[in-house]
Amino acid sequence: MDTYSPVTAEIAALLEEICGANHVIFRDEERLEPYSHDEIPGKHYRHMPEIVVRPSTTEEVSRIVALANERHIPVTPRGAGSGLSGGAVPVFGGIVVATDRMNKILELDKENMMIVVQPGVVANDINEFLKPHGLFYAGYPMSMETCYIGGNVAENAGGGKAVKYGVTGRYVLGLEVVMPSGQILEVGGKLLKDVTGYNLLPLLTGSEGTLGIFTKIILKVIPRPKYQFDLLALFKDSRTAINAVPATLTGSGITPTSIEYMDADSFKAACRYLNETLPYDECGAMLLVSVDGNDPEQMMDDIELLGDFLEKQGAFNVYVADTQANSERIWKIRRSVAEAFSLYFPRQSGEDVVVPPAAIADVVEEFQTLAEKYGVAIPCYGHAGDGNLHSRVSAPDSWSDEQWEQTLPKLLEELYGVVARRGGRISGEHGIGCKRLKYMPCVVSEAFIDVLRAIKAALDPNNIMNPGKIFAMTAK
Amino acid sequence: MDTYSPVTAEIAALLEEICGANHVIFRDEERLEPYSHDEIPGKHYRHMPEIVVRPSTTEEVSRIVALANERHIPVTPRGAGSGLSGGAVPVFGGIVVATDRMNKILELDKENMMIVVQPGVVANDINEFLKPHGLFYAGYPMSMETCYIGGNVAENAGGGKAVKYGVTGRYVLGLEVVMPSGQILEVGGKLLKDVTGYNLLPLLTGSEGTLGIFTKIILKVIPRPKYQFDLLALFKDSRTAINAVPATLTGSGITPTSIEYMDADSFKAACRYLNETLPYDECGAMLLVSVDGNDPEQMMDDIELLGDFLEKQGAFNVYVADTQANSERIWKIRRSVAEAFSLYFPRQSGEDVVVPPAAIADVVEEFQTLAEKYGVAIPCYGHAGDGNLHSRVSAPDSWSDEQWEQTLPKLLEELYGVVARRGGRISGEHGIGCKRLKYMPCVVSEAFIDVLRAIKAALDPNNIMNPGKIFAMTAK
Repeated sequence: MDTYSPVTAEIAALLEEICGANHVIFRDEERLEPYSHDEIPGKHYRHMPEIVVRPSTTEEVSRIVALANERHIPVTPRGAGSGLSGGAVPVFGGIVVATDRMNKILELDKENMMIVVQPGVVANDINEFLKPHGLFYAGYPMSMETCYIGGNVAENAGGGKAVKYGVTGRYVLGLEVVMPSGQILEVGGKLLKDVTGYNLLPLLTGSEGTLGIFTKIILKVIPRPKYQFDLLALFKDSRTAINAVPATLTGSGITPTSIEYMDADSFKAACRYLNETLPYDECGAMLLVSVDGNDPEQMMDDIELLGDFLEKQGAFNVYVADTQANSERIWKIRRSVAEAFSLYFPRQSGEDVVVPPAAIADVVEEFQTLAEKYGVAIPCYGHAGDGNLHSRVSAPDSWSDEQWEQTLPKLLEELYGVVARRGGRISGEHGIGCKRLKYMPCVVSEAFIDVLRAIKAALDPNNIMNPGKIFAMTAK
Repeated sequence: MDTYSPVTAEIAALLEEICGANHVIFRDEERLEPYSHDEIPGKHYRHMPEIVVRPSTTEEVSRIVALANERHIPVTPRGAGSGLSGGAVPVFGGIVVATDRMNKILELDKENMMIVVQPGVVANDINEFLKPHGLFYAGYPMSMETCYIGGNVAENAGGGKAVKYGVTGRYVLGLEVVMPSGQILEVGGKLLKDVTGYNLLPLLTGSEGTLGIFTKIILKVIPRPKYQFDLLALFKDSRTAINAVPATLTGSGITPTSIEYMDADSFKAACRYLNETLPYDECGAMLLVSVDGNDPEQMMDDIELLGDFLEKQGAFNVYVADTQANSERIWKIRRSVAEAFSLYFPRQSGEDVVVPPAAIADVVEEFQTLAEKYGVAIPCYGHAGDGNLHSRVSAPDSWSDEQWEQTLPKLLEELYGVVARRGGRISGEHGIGCKRLKYMPCVVSEAFIDVLRAIKAALDPNNIMNPGKIFAMTAK
């Protein structure tokens, strides 16, 4: 285990000199507390920082990190704190570098169809900015209204449109990064292809803040599709619904923008949370399918064809959302599942497994067998089109905290074992962070983790950059 | 500079034991010679291997590399030898590992839309295999009829369809890799998303054989578009043609599959080579534009719309290829440019720069200014839709070898300087190899190269895996 130097009054003074005293929080429990956790509930995924700094320039970030590296103090980069793997939790204390003041859209380059932003820009604000220009940033996740683009890049966030458009990483063309030494590195640029040296962009994207802090991000944007149509297909049971997903992708001849899956527990929790009443008593699972484009007639043909196709795959009813309001109503249910579960099941663990798309139905069934064995619920929902399943392992109200804490690790090892046997992994888009670190060996080899360690040690020899995330530096 | 151990008779015997004596070439100049170069002409990019081994299994590759690592002998992986950057040239001698016997398509997984292949499969054979299944591998380069998929992945090859479909790396979902220690590593899998640890796939893809040897490759495949339509737009001059490219991408509302550019020197050389006569005397530059899809009526509408759009952008004539034979005729011209130049200009250097797409017209003009200054020709062609320009710096027949060799490095430094000032890089898809290694500092910082070195040293501490490529291990 690494031991780090404490943040002394001398260090605090040096950091105040760099960022300005107004932008440093030190020895103030109440103001430090919000920086001690992300969106995972529960006391296990919280740790107080010793100090929070809020730099406004690349140079300030560079000076902060150089100081931390010299003095051997851990640095934890933080975006909006909307993460779901504890990536922004300063598990060794030290310095939290909050990027909220670096929130400018620096340039829209319409000729090259690229946008240059700082890390603290809210993902949705990028699209609001692009809208009047007829352009679109397609990589955003479900939490787009709060999350920062810097965090999206750090986690390689996915989202509801990844079936058609891919995840965040596909759109990251360039990064300015403050490396663990404090050195400022330019990687990529306004380039659509580049094989000039190793491809560092996707290594840094998704590195969860362990290899550096992004201070400038160049994103590819695309022409904004003018229309989106949605349909909701109802199925009697999960297996029929899930099997319809690869069938649709391989057999319908249409590439939907999204294929989202919700089982009965998931959409019922969301409806209860939203005080929404859907008369879907006999519905065991739903697929929410969207298409986008510029030719409404063509798209309506596609949606009808998809509806017919899904009925042939066993949907007993297909509703096409015929107005913007109806579309919004459907999507709101999907987007509220996570919040609803967090509210109704205080003792729960949000999982983010990814498996080969054709294996999802089997995996969901095996999860239900596990749920029965352990006496818990494991409702499932998520991005079925990508093989990325969100599952909420939820304890009954009657359980004590102790019972939950003793049971969960055993259950998760079994659950990840199911995933591993199908060639899956433990995170499709939320990241490993501190939450899933100890479960990495369930799905990847020690040799694989050793390669990650070797890269980390090469680029961060003092292990100051977001330590305690993804993997432990020494094998157990 | 690294010094390596020689391949002795003892080492040769050990390698024969691993691969079988029939699959080892040792002390036989004539049979070793074909492994001393790739497709770059000229004596500077050749070096004889001491031994060639042709393993047929992952385990054999692993044992070869482990032995080389133990005895400190350089290993150079080789595919079809169709590269254009000297990546497969064994610049320090040692062992060439030829992958031609690992040429099996291992599995077509139709449910997951993935295919599993060995590295020695010819890229085009994958598509021939997929055709009857209605599927398609979109990542292949122009040399698809000869190149191996292992080399494509090692170089992150691009190609004519990258505008719509992206390059090789977008399709690589999983790799089995023999690491420089000889250890066999599984990276990725049959997964469409995965953030379980650093994203090693794109780091290994394009690492030019310096981080390991791929022994198994999982590729994503897509539904095969049923039709492709092509048009040829003729322009009076380069600038008008090139400016039409970003205009088309941002303004036409259609995403073409390809937008290929050829200047007059390029298409004339290709026509001469093919004994093809096109009555295009007043044509200074051409764009070859393709669309693909499944709805021929819609596509014909798109092609007509693109034709009209290109005429508005200054094309004085637009030909739509109305038959398969005409399409093939047009594409054959484009595909033959490189061979034609190689034949007609024995003293030439094939360049592969990439710049922001909107900068291409300026870059081409500056290249012409340079051409005049040095008294050479710099015809340009390539994937204009990606900002990836192939330029052939070609000396007049009257020049001596000496004059050429003295002039070229100075000219290239200036040429790369033009590229650097536009935020470009020296290779978009051909790689750095040994050919462009010394020019890396023209376009990236020493800090960037240091990061590459650190990663290389971490994963290949003895520097045995394809040394002398991309960067020198010690700064100059």
